[in-house]
Amino acid sequence: MNREQLLAAVKEQVTKHRYEHILGVVETAKKLSKRYGADKKKAELAAILHDYCKFWPEEKMKRIIEETPHIPSDLLEYDKELWHAHVGAEVARRELGIEDEDVLDAIRYHTSGRENMTLLERVVCLADYIEPTRQFPGVDELRKLAKEDLDRALAQALGGTITFLVKREKRIYPLTVLARNSLVKPKKKQAQEEV
Amino acid sequence: MNREQLLAAVKEQVTKHRYEHILGVVETAKKLSKRYGADKKKAELAAILHDYCKFWPEEKMKRIIEETPHIPSDLLEYDKELWHAHVGAEVARRELGIEDEDVLDAIRYHTSGRENMTLLERVVCLADYIEPTRQFPGVDELRKLAKEDLDRALAQALGGTITFLVKREKRIYPLTVLARNSLVKPKKKQAQEEV
Repeated sequence: MNREQLLAAVKEQVTKHRYEHILGVVETAKKLSKRYGADKKKAELAAILHDYCKFWPEEKMKRIIEETPHIPSDLLEYDKELWHAHVGAEVARRELGIEDEDVLDAIRYHTSGRENMTLLERVVCLADYIEPTRQFPGVDELRKLAKEDLDRALAQALGGTITFLVKREKRIYPLTVLARNSLVKPKKKQAQEEV
Repeated sequence: MNREQLLAAVKEQVTKHRYEHILGVVETAKKLSKRYGADKKKAELAAILHDYCKFWPEEKMKRIIEETPHIPSDLLEYDKELWHAHVGAEVARRELGIEDEDVLDAIRYHTSGRENMTLLERVVCLADYIEPTRQFPGVDELRKLAKEDLDRALAQALGGTITFLVKREKRIYPLTVLARNSLVKPKKKQAQEEV
């Protein structure tokens, strides 16, 4: 499928509002790619497909998670907001013919993040937080930071998610903490190096 | 060593203010033990010793962490506030003759927590947060909650630490997240069970 065919396929799966969000992520991911030197075509493809399964029924996502050995089954113990990313990568491969592992990983980890994310993963994940239709406290500061420091912006975005989950008394997916930890410079080491 | 000898040994290692804190943790740990059915003697012993190494020089703690195979060496990549707990358990065993593994674990995990903490560990960890000399935003709410629900209070306390680390742009020790996760009831499952 070409770009237009993929966009049409996505449009069928999501709400109008979500589709606007997806177009926002596409544009923002392209801008971030240019700024930080990521592969623009891969970023665009991952952005187009990242929310493909966002509105799929819980049971359908659960079945795919259970039947797919490389999707970590502990996902089911955490917020289902995390599910559509892993399921989306699987469906992109199976049904939409996406074979590029970089793109699939960018879809797969766009919500949770993971330790030592690739540049492409960081770009798509951050674009998802800051695209123009997003509205949440601190988003403007994030947008500004995204122009200066990709990693610090993403660490702050993931930190916001972690804080949100604490407030809501929800579990935090460990991979999100590992993602943020690997983006935060170890201050202790910095201090030691300065000595 | 008996109780008084141990207290005297502790007193030599810490500041006056910290010693007041330790006495507060002892009293609070005893109260929580009574309320939730933990072993009062073990809780008292762990509380007496929990901050034994709090003011030890960084290099000395680092050496002990490096030379002790069962202390996870990744500790060194995280805030050194975490170090004294693991080092303290080791020193309590080596130098103070404490052999009770339950007590040693309560010392070891009193700062980071860990997944599926024992009742004793939860009591000592929470007592450390809420003893009477502690002052931080939300501590009164925690004290109140501690009388009603040990796990929810501890989850909230650990959540406060996590939020604090996010604000300070510091790394979060993964064990702390796992500790909190195992105390937070999985809302998803609850909802499913209700169906």
